Amino acid sequence: MKISTLSIGDELICGQITDTNAGTIASVLLTEGLRVQRHLTVGDNEPDIMDALNELGRSSDMVIVTGGLGPTADDMTSRAAARATGRRLVINEDARAHVRLISAKLESLIVCPLSDKQAMIPTKSSLIPNPNGTACGFQLMHNGSFMFFMPGVPSEMLVMLRESVIPFILERVTRKRVIRSLSLNLFGPCEAEVDELLAGIARPELGLNMGICVTYPWIRVTLRAEADNPDTVSELLDSAGSLVRERLSEYIFSDSGAGMDETVAELFRGGCLTLALAESCTGGLIAKRITDIPGSSAYFLEGVVTYGNAAKMRLLGVPSDLLDTKGAVSSECASAMAKGVRAAAGSDLGLAVTGIAGPDGGTEEKPAGTVFISLAAPDGCWTKRFQFHGSRDEVRVITAWTALDWLRRYLLQRAVN
Amino acid sequence: MKISTLSIGDELICGQITDTNAGTIASVLLTEGLRVQRHLTVGDNEPDIMDALNELGRSSDMVIVTGGLGPTADDMTSRAAARATGRRLVINEDARAHVRLISAKLESLIVCPLSDKQAMIPTKSSLIPNPNGTACGFQLMHNGSFMFFMPGVPSEMLVMLRESVIPFILERVTRKRVIRSLSLNLFGPCEAEVDELLAGIARPELGLNMGICVTYPWIRVTLRAEADNPDTVSELLDSAGSLVRERLSEYIFSDSGAGMDETVAELFRGGCLTLALAESCTGGLIAKRITDIPGSSAYFLEGVVTYGNAAKMRLLGVPSDLLDTKGAVSSECASAMAKGVRAAAGSDLGLAVTGIAGPDGGTEEKPAGTVFISLAAPDGCWTKRFQFHGSRDEVRVITAWTALDWLRRYLLQRAVN
Repeated sequence: MKISTLSIGDELICGQITDTNAGTIASVLLTEGLRVQRHLTVGDNEPDIMDALNELGRSSDMVIVTGGLGPTADDMTSRAAARATGRRLVINEDARAHVRLISAKLESLIVCPLSDKQAMIPTKSSLIPNPNGTACGFQLMHNGSFMFFMPGVPSEMLVMLRESVIPFILERVTRKRVIRSLSLNLFGPCEAEVDELLAGIARPELGLNMGICVTYPWIRVTLRAEADNPDTVSELLDSAGSLVRERLSEYIFSDSGAGMDETVAELFRGGCLTLALAESCTGGLIAKRITDIPGSSAYFLEGVVTYGNAAKMRLLGVPSDLLDTKGAVSSECASAMAKGVRAAAGSDLGLAVTGIAGPDGGTEEKPAGTVFISLAAPDGCWTKRFQFHGSRDEVRVITAWTALDWLRRYLLQRAVN
Repeated sequence: MKISTLSIGDELICGQITDTNAGTIASVLLTEGLRVQRHLTVGDNEPDIMDALNELGRSSDMVIVTGGLGPTADDMTSRAAARATGRRLVINEDARAHVRLISAKLESLIVCPLSDKQAMIPTKSSLIPNPNGTACGFQLMHNGSFMFFMPGVPSEMLVMLRESVIPFILERVTRKRVIRSLSLNLFGPCEAEVDELLAGIARPELGLNMGICVTYPWIRVTLRAEADNPDTVSELLDSAGSLVRERLSEYIFSDSGAGMDETVAELFRGGCLTLALAESCTGGLIAKRITDIPGSSAYFLEGVVTYGNAAKMRLLGVPSDLLDTKGAVSSECASAMAKGVRAAAGSDLGLAVTGIAGPDGGTEEKPAGTVFISLAAPDGCWTKRFQFHGSRDEVRVITAWTALDWLRRYLLQRAVN
């Protein structure tokens, strides 16, 4: 079964807002074993919408359309749908009743003549109920293709998709293919290394595909198995999953979709250690990420952002002669910061970073991207120099990731670096 | 001139990651007076890519393609481009030299045979230089349509688009319509208020359109004027811009595209005041945003993330009886934190936030979303209670925004709240 999606909106095609509906629809369909083949976006322009509908209608069995059903003049999907499929656009009494009912519920909208625009539906269509908004959706058949029209508001669309569109599609799937996927999140190696290490695992001829997706600075490996029956799919996925785990074990931080932050939080919650942070070049980014997670106050005692030397001395007890002789960006300073914040806060772990995020401030010996990370713990203190590359933002992000990965490794009782 | 974009990637068509390239390309082109007519997304699948190229080639003068140029086996854009346009795929020596040069620079990649895949380019194409990554882009002409192929990594793509693709397209634009836009970034009022305040400014019949785009928690108002000559466009834009400024003046933080962080940084750079931060519920987010900006060390002395009461007492000198009687989430505590961090750091300004980000930790009197912000300055100390709504993340984000907006207002010598 060929499925396409079409997003309609000037604000989308002009890049003013990012289209999230296309991705949402694709991932929800995928959990039902349905795959989107192509996605198209056009603006609020009648000829473009008509062309898109005709084209997708020819190439697809199902066309899922979002956007352009609003009350304002620039929303013209219904009219374009009627014209593209040779229908008339008429007031639909059920849709009109719905607009009035929802408007009254929302209290903020006055039922003015304008709203009747949302009750104009192409003939020979059936309505798709929208429990959360005034715009009814509708579906129609054209040249052997089913077309579903929904509003672009993500929360309204999602309910309509789940409650009406997917059940309708699933009833019409004749030979159901089972699709399941497994995603493993990893941090450390680069894309080319991962690709080399995982060579030979994908077996497209058996229905086992593998995707490697880089979301700086981490990588997601997705295995997707597709077959006629669930047992084959499970076998394919289990054996491929084991191979990936074997080859990349130490880099994998999650197989549940959890990010690095959640993973580290989970490990802290499972133990009884507390943490304090001393950040220089990351400027609060690590503390921000630790405290992104609800309940982090149970293990995160405090953080200090010590940009200047005065703060490093006063808050962390870094000796001034150390700063004079070794500099603030040095292995010695990083260790002193980690030990200092651990002692001051009375925490089990003290994590410190100091470095040059750039673009300025680098020297020949310590160019921008030079970063020292140090972890002080009851059983020792580890410090390491890194040379990162990229923009200021990238250096800060990868520094925070590396520091969080150190926490993960320490909490898993693995070698830190 | 008809321009289309094509994004290629399984992770995009499956909804695993959201496509931001399409929007970036559209908005960058728009600033040059060029409009994207349609956007298409397909997966890493040779027949689908070939169909898409053929189809867009027929309907467009320019096709801008991103994605699928990586070193791994699932990247197959180059091969599909060669087959769709009847070319051979051969090693391009310039591209090979480029891969090696960049790999050597990055130091993290080993130049292994794998990398040569990125040097395989369709014949009769010219390379598009990629200063930031191993994947060269390329451009070719097919059936009267120019096609540009770039990697999907947003930072690499953007440079290539700006430096190579857009100049090439602009040279070929025959009858130029002048399109110019003006964006005003504002923080404070909600969308409905903005919409009401700006009623009547848009004049689509004269070629003056207005878009209101909400990017939580701030709003961008974009005026776009289109006409045959630059003078008309300037007149339209100037008079509409003045009206917007008049009606929304105090909320507008930027008309240059700068974000709140840059705006505040610019004001600090223009003065000689220094800043210290004490954060509780934002957990380092404000410090992170202040230090996102290069050169912030000139005015940002230090930040402390005082999650626990012990840290509030030790680092900020908040009296323990104040914490006992008023609580950590109180106006008194916020003021004490702001004054405390100002005194400890010896800064001109001390900014503090304390609150309940949620989802847990709220009480009837102080539900989740209760936040106190305090600013201590040489000429006074201002503290205010806010009741924010939304998820933990939203409460933290809007707290940080409000705190930064207080700094902006103070530095502009306006009333803080």
